[in-house]
Amino acid sequence: MKVPDPVTRLGQSTPDRIEVRGHDLCRDLIGKLSFTEMMLLHLTGKRPEAAAARMVDALLVAMVEHGLTLNAIAARMTYASAPEALQGAVAAGLLGAGSVFFGAMEVTAQMLERTMQRLRSGNVSIEEAAAELVADYRRRRAKLPGFGHRIHKPDDPRPAVLFRLARELGYYGQHCELMAATSGAVDASAGRHLTLNVAAAYAAILLDMGFDSRIIKGFVLIARCAGLVGHLYEEQQIPAARRIADLVEEAVPYRPGGD
Amino acid sequence: MKVPDPVTRLGQSTPDRIEVRGHDLCRDLIGKLSFTEMMLLHLTGKRPEAAAARMVDALLVAMVEHGLTLNAIAARMTYASAPEALQGAVAAGLLGAGSVFFGAMEVTAQMLERTMQRLRSGNVSIEEAAAELVADYRRRRAKLPGFGHRIHKPDDPRPAVLFRLARELGYYGQHCELMAATSGAVDASAGRHLTLNVAAAYAAILLDMGFDSRIIKGFVLIARCAGLVGHLYEEQQIPAARRIADLVEEAVPYRPGGD
Amino acid sequence: MKVPDPVTRLGQSTPDRIEVRGHDLCRDLIGKLSFTEMMLLHLTGKRPEAAAARMVDALLVAMVEHGLTLNAIAARMTYASAPEALQGAVAAGLLGAGSVFFGAMEVTAQMLERTMQRLRSGNVSIEEAAAELVADYRRRRAKLPGFGHRIHKPDDPRPAVLFRLARELGYYGQHCELMAATSGAVDASAGRHLTLNVAAAYAAILLDMGFDSRIIKGFVLIARCAGLVGHLYEEQQIPAARRIADLVEEAVPYRPGGD
Amino acid sequence: MKVPDPVTRLGQSTPDRIEVRGHDLCRDLIGKLSFTEMMLLHLTGKRPEAAAARMVDALLVAMVEHGLTLNAIAARMTYASAPEALQGAVAAGLLGAGSVFFGAMEVTAQMLERTMQRLRSGNVSIEEAAAELVADYRRRRAKLPGFGHRIHKPDDPRPAVLFRLARELGYYGQHCELMAATSGAVDASAGRHLTLNVAAAYAAILLDMGFDSRIIKGFVLIARCAGLVGHLYEEQQIPAARRIADLVEEAVPYRPGGD
Repeated sequence: MKVPDPVTRLGQSTPDRIEVRGHDLCRDLIGKLSFTEMMLLHLTGKRPEAAAARMVDALLVAMVEHGLTLNAIAARMTYASAPEALQGAVAAGLLGAGSVFFGAMEVTAQMLERTMQRLRSGNVSIEEAAAELVADYRRRRAKLPGFGHRIHKPDDPRPAVLFRLARELGYYGQHCELMAATSGAVDASAGRHLTLNVAAAYAAILLDMGFDSRIIKGFVLIARCAGLVGHLYEEQQIPAARRIADLVEEAVPYRPGGD
Repeated sequence: MKVPDPVTRLGQSTPDRIEVRGHDLCRDLIGKLSFTEMMLLHLTGKRPEAAAARMVDALLVAMVEHGLTLNAIAARMTYASAPEALQGAVAAGLLGAGSVFFGAMEVTAQMLERTMQRLRSGNVSIEEAAAELVADYRRRRAKLPGFGHRIHKPDDPRPAVLFRLARELGYYGQHCELMAATSGAVDASAGRHLTLNVAAAYAAILLDMGFDSRIIKGFVLIARCAGLVGHLYEEQQIPAARRIADLVEEAVPYRPGGD
Repeated sequence: MKVPDPVTRLGQSTPDRIEVRGHDLCRDLIGKLSFTEMMLLHLTGKRPEAAAARMVDALLVAMVEHGLTLNAIAARMTYASAPEALQGAVAAGLLGAGSVFFGAMEVTAQMLERTMQRLRSGNVSIEEAAAELVADYRRRRAKLPGFGHRIHKPDDPRPAVLFRLARELGYYGQHCELMAATSGAVDASAGRHLTLNVAAAYAAILLDMGFDSRIIKGFVLIARCAGLVGHLYEEQQIPAARRIADLVEEAVPYRPGGD
Repeated sequence: MKVPDPVTRLGQSTPDRIEVRGHDLCRDLIGKLSFTEMMLLHLTGKRPEAAAARMVDALLVAMVEHGLTLNAIAARMTYASAPEALQGAVAAGLLGAGSVFFGAMEVTAQMLERTMQRLRSGNVSIEEAAAELVADYRRRRAKLPGFGHRIHKPDDPRPAVLFRLARELGYYGQHCELMAATSGAVDASAGRHLTLNVAAAYAAILLDMGFDSRIIKGFVLIARCAGLVGHLYEEQQIPAARRIADLVEEAVPYRPGGD
């Protein structure tokens, strides 16, 4: 199989012009598009509908800030060591976007994609597919992505508002329905209510907007990048990193010996 | 001097609520604010004026995409090696935001801040301060930040449109005036026109909006984070990394010996 | 279940002393231990046998350098953008240690650990366990970790020398035997010889030395960290990054339109 | 000026062979060289003398571990969020190697290089050059690199042992003498003893070994890479990250209001 020659459809700089997705950046985009619209043009190649930009704005706004989380601490620690390289502190914070916290978006989206294939190929309803899915995870004693939250109980407050907006804006499609049906099946199977978390809403809505599961974590990275810049701006004004390090030293003492 | 106990003014998660800067995230912010407005609320603690959001939108839009730059290549290389960790590829790309490329924003801003102090303390006009500044760099044979560009000649197309918008929106203040005067002094001193680059516009406008020089690179990081996510989305669809690696192997041959 | 209070057994700095694993760094370790011995003391809490240090030296030496690989390119691109932050360029290179390249060590080790559990619990011989393992991957049409290499064919030259040394030094145990048996089963099942790669040797030997599968990638990171520092030292002396970026621009042209 | 075509002198992989610096990796290097010797061969192109390897071993051993420092905390935070990507956690830790902590090596080395140029060009003794240097920093009220330590007082225990070894092994040259003279001048100028820190020893010895100031931080990165892998191995066995995060939440409370 011959691999086609790689090209880029994204952009190019020439001496007097920058072009992005076929548009003149300075004449057509700067001052005309919001950052979120630009992001969507860049990702998809098309100027987004107003509804798409509103939906993505909401998804991004939801993930900017949640307090002094592990990745905010990592960023502040790094900044205090290397204040001349802000990019390193932001990068350190983003590197926490793994399976335990933000990666759940990706895994949830993959689960929804696989189940949609099952739905399309078989004669099953959404409810039946959801019930099968839950039964399969239960059998394998695997953690079902999109459910449970360290802090938010019984409900993560974000999914409801995001799903409501998705309905209003026309992005509540089959993946959202499948996610809702899965939540019902989870509660039925567990005999009690389990928290549907923000990863579930993110995954379902972005899939219904037409994005691929592999890029969904990208939206979280953009939102968190802004959040981390905010944390570092605060660290510049109200330094906390050294105090945190002193606390850690006390709280995690050196005990060289055995057990 | 007693250091005050550190606090955070940014946000907090509790079981049924997320609060950001004193606002209920789900009730007051999601669906109500654009991502750029949220970013400004997060950074400054205040809901931004419409003009501020438009200005920051323009600054961010200007930096999302410029083609297959060094940091886009770094991100794609990393992605091809570790596709399961999108965050690592984005982080690798952001780590290129150093002194040669994006760091110019920071250095330019520091230069403007220092010169403004001189202006405030002395009896000099903006034009005199700019001329002194240029003469000082010339004497030290140092590169004046904010001028010159690898590709854009004779003019980087972005500063004009950004400064025009800053005027319209009320953010063309003393730092912008100083930057313009410096450009005049540079041309006079060199006897020819030197490119005023996008870093100059970024630095001057964000200082006139009230931001500190130490956080200015943060805006570029947010814009480039979106740009890098776009590159990785394209890399998923049109893989280029392996071909690039093969090219490099040919173009940079192994020559173990001396010279 | 009560989580015990966290402690560290690694080290501590006090005004006149640094202690590592119960030893006085300056009196007992500096000048007395090689870097590899120190690394093993730090990881395990015990001064290593000479054989262990020789084995780990060999494993590290094997991974320092393989030419201008994807992660070396990522590091050089980042360095050219941010030469004042060497740590960022090294970090960018290490971030490529994912599933496609260096992560294979981790996945191979996990596979060996799972199969050893099967061996311990059942009445099967190593050969039978290997044959089952290969049959299982074949049935699931999954790629068997530890086999195949982009460049090295028919044989990766490293496993033979590493396994020979492991035999000499007393680290050729059950995991190595299982890996060898798996190689036999792979060839039998495919009807031709498949390359056993360096990840297979790394995983098997480090497991036989008593390390856990989750830390095996750590050894590769240390070796590659040294390799990347070497690439950046060369980049300082013989800059290649800008030329590479120019090449990429030509080779991956901007084509904004459709297909 | 024509830039010469870039080449690499480091290494190359071909189907049956890996070559590093002109040597066959599998036949001549694996099992024959220690990791430190390999590192030096890779960096310099020459097999190192035994003395050079011992000196570098000592320098690396000195920097592996100092307790739960800011970068160890950053690495552990990142690991707890993304345990499937060990490389990200190590990278996050290394990103703290900036101006405040490990960057001091680089800045100290640059200071020594500049002063040596002064020495070579003028008719001044080492003592005079040191006194001038100290006077110049004092006049500019700048912090003199290589002096002072957050924890170690009155003496960092590492420089003495490293300088003693450098003398024994023949690497105590002009840069080391200049550093010692600078320490004398600092104490004389301050009227009390100031701590000469490990960065001073690192910088002086590596310059006397013939390395360039720009790569000196690279040695620290290699040593710390091993140290961070050790911290993450301990985090796998004795998890501390979540507890640290809980502590931080309490110690840095959310105070949305004013001042």
